[in-house]
Amino acid sequence: MSTSADPTTADTLSTPALVVDASAFAHNTAAMDAIRPDRQLRPHVKAFKSTALAKQLAADGHDAFCAATPREVEGMAEAGLTEDLLLANESLDLGRLGTLDAHITVAVDSEAILDAVISSGVRSVLIDIDVGLPRCGCDTEVGLQLAERARNNGIDVRGVMGYEGHLMMVSDRAERIEKVEEAMATLTEAHDRIGGGIVSGGGTGTFDTNTWCTEIQAGSYTLMDTHYSQLDLPFQQALAVVATVISINQKGWIVADAGLKAFGMNLGDPTWAGPGKVLYCSDEHICLVPDELTDFSVGDRVVLHPSHVDPTVARHEQMWLVEGDLAYDGVVRDRWPIDLRHW
Amino acid sequence: MSTSADPTTADTLSTPALVVDASAFAHNTAAMDAIRPDRQLRPHVKAFKSTALAKQLAADGHDAFCAATPREVEGMAEAGLTEDLLLANESLDLGRLGTLDAHITVAVDSEAILDAVISSGVRSVLIDIDVGLPRCGCDTEVGLQLAERARNNGIDVRGVMGYEGHLMMVSDRAERIEKVEEAMATLTEAHDRIGGGIVSGGGTGTFDTNTWCTEIQAGSYTLMDTHYSQLDLPFQQALAVVATVISINQKGWIVADAGLKAFGMNLGDPTWAGPGKVLYCSDEHICLVPDELTDFSVGDRVVLHPSHVDPTVARHEQMWLVEGDLAYDGVVRDRWPIDLRHW
Repeated sequence: MSTSADPTTADTLSTPALVVDASAFAHNTAAMDAIRPDRQLRPHVKAFKSTALAKQLAADGHDAFCAATPREVEGMAEAGLTEDLLLANESLDLGRLGTLDAHITVAVDSEAILDAVISSGVRSVLIDIDVGLPRCGCDTEVGLQLAERARNNGIDVRGVMGYEGHLMMVSDRAERIEKVEEAMATLTEAHDRIGGGIVSGGGTGTFDTNTWCTEIQAGSYTLMDTHYSQLDLPFQQALAVVATVISINQKGWIVADAGLKAFGMNLGDPTWAGPGKVLYCSDEHICLVPDELTDFSVGDRVVLHPSHVDPTVARHEQMWLVEGDLAYDGVVRDRWPIDLRHW
Repeated sequence: MSTSADPTTADTLSTPALVVDASAFAHNTAAMDAIRPDRQLRPHVKAFKSTALAKQLAADGHDAFCAATPREVEGMAEAGLTEDLLLANESLDLGRLGTLDAHITVAVDSEAILDAVISSGVRSVLIDIDVGLPRCGCDTEVGLQLAERARNNGIDVRGVMGYEGHLMMVSDRAERIEKVEEAMATLTEAHDRIGGGIVSGGGTGTFDTNTWCTEIQAGSYTLMDTHYSQLDLPFQQALAVVATVISINQKGWIVADAGLKAFGMNLGDPTWAGPGKVLYCSDEHICLVPDELTDFSVGDRVVLHPSHVDPTVARHEQMWLVEGDLAYDGVVRDRWPIDLRHW
């Protein structure tokens, strides 16, 4: 769908509907571009899983992307976003990437993963360094050995990456800067020894405080969630789920048709734009306690903000870009298929 | 995929893979059939969202189903499972069901929903009674008025439903029976006054203790999860996610490629079949602390049991029915598309 003379309004979307506030989205991308223009940002597609959204970012100069799964890399290549795709994750399932007509780089933190790279046909790697998050990444000594063996096998070692995910939510900005500096000291030391032009890391929570990386792997900033909104970030809540009230109980609650299958729930319940509070979610229901029960009728629409953007988006087939009111008379400007889901 | 002379083994499935233990599944359906044969069970498709799985249950005599969304009802009808489909939920989006060539019944708890039924072309309802779960359902007086108006409009009032969801996890069996009896007293009183042949309710947690319903709305029993496994139920854990180890850190953890996007997380982390414990999940990773780190290599496969079956299944495109070992040499007997997802 594109802008037309007779656009659809938000109240025609069947619910639960995943919607993107067009003005908040525009604000977020502008706020990021002001700090991280062009290749200083490598948008992480895992947050939004949509090539349509990725193309908006590419048009703004961010045409190098990172991904968390081989499927995401495949989907980006299929959509023609082939310029510079980084699988910022370890995988043994690389054969499917080696034959794609795209510039693909993958993360490596062990000999076994490097074996998979060499046999896959992928020709570029970043060495993934452990910077303190208990997840993937090796130490510098192992990284050096991997880089040497990669180069001996004709693989381009483009540099290093290290994700300080454990520091994304440090709420005090000064403390965040201090801890990120510590984590990045490990990464820059590794970079000094391993070489290559890229130092990749960071995320929405450290997009401006991580000044040691040559590129930042942020994705959530585009759409945002109530978890990241706790920080002092210049991004607005753009993502919402719109639901329809299907039942009202005179004991004091209303029920709408977006349940825990419409949200990522690992960081807790979504937040109701109000007035009132969320009681709980079940599979296909959210129970809400409004301040005034008589303000609501069956058929009313409510706006819910997810606590975690990435797993929420991954539950839906599409996002609707809406200009204006998200529930009723806003104009539906576009439909972005969430085409990078699954594995 | 069907049984063939040269079947695939589980180790060929790309990960994360949602798998069903064929022998546990057969055990679960037999255990249910022994207590709730034929129409005494109305399997709830929201738990497994697969018409292929539903057809297995229909072949065993359970050919009346219930669903939580209009999409689930549509999908069942499209798959030819048209005998008796109950939308056990309120919806205003019923126009899409009125034209289907299937026997469709929907739940009603308000005049607004009944208006939607009357204009939709759907010709059968159950009156949804509030039995104590803070969600949908009306009281008996409202239910009587709805039934009368429905009948005056030529709608078949087939009976009542009431879901005692708040009692599913009462761990002491005697206490569960007592509380279910209380909740069902409300429902049977409503039934006495409203009439119709059906008293529908219950779930996996009360499939045998709820002896007041003429039919039980259970679905999770087929696949099970670690939450329901806390109860004294005769069902085995059939559902698992198989993941591949992609990184090992000498500080004491391993990382596999199934993260919180592969699980429903509202009831917490999945459980690792062991030996060791789950540290945490991120989007595409699960970090595990094994008892013995040296027992693991990159490329090993691990088996993870979800905490909540319904939202886990809804994250995947298919389930693989595996006979024998789920991670390595078990035989892949079937692929069940999860075709009832979304809205």
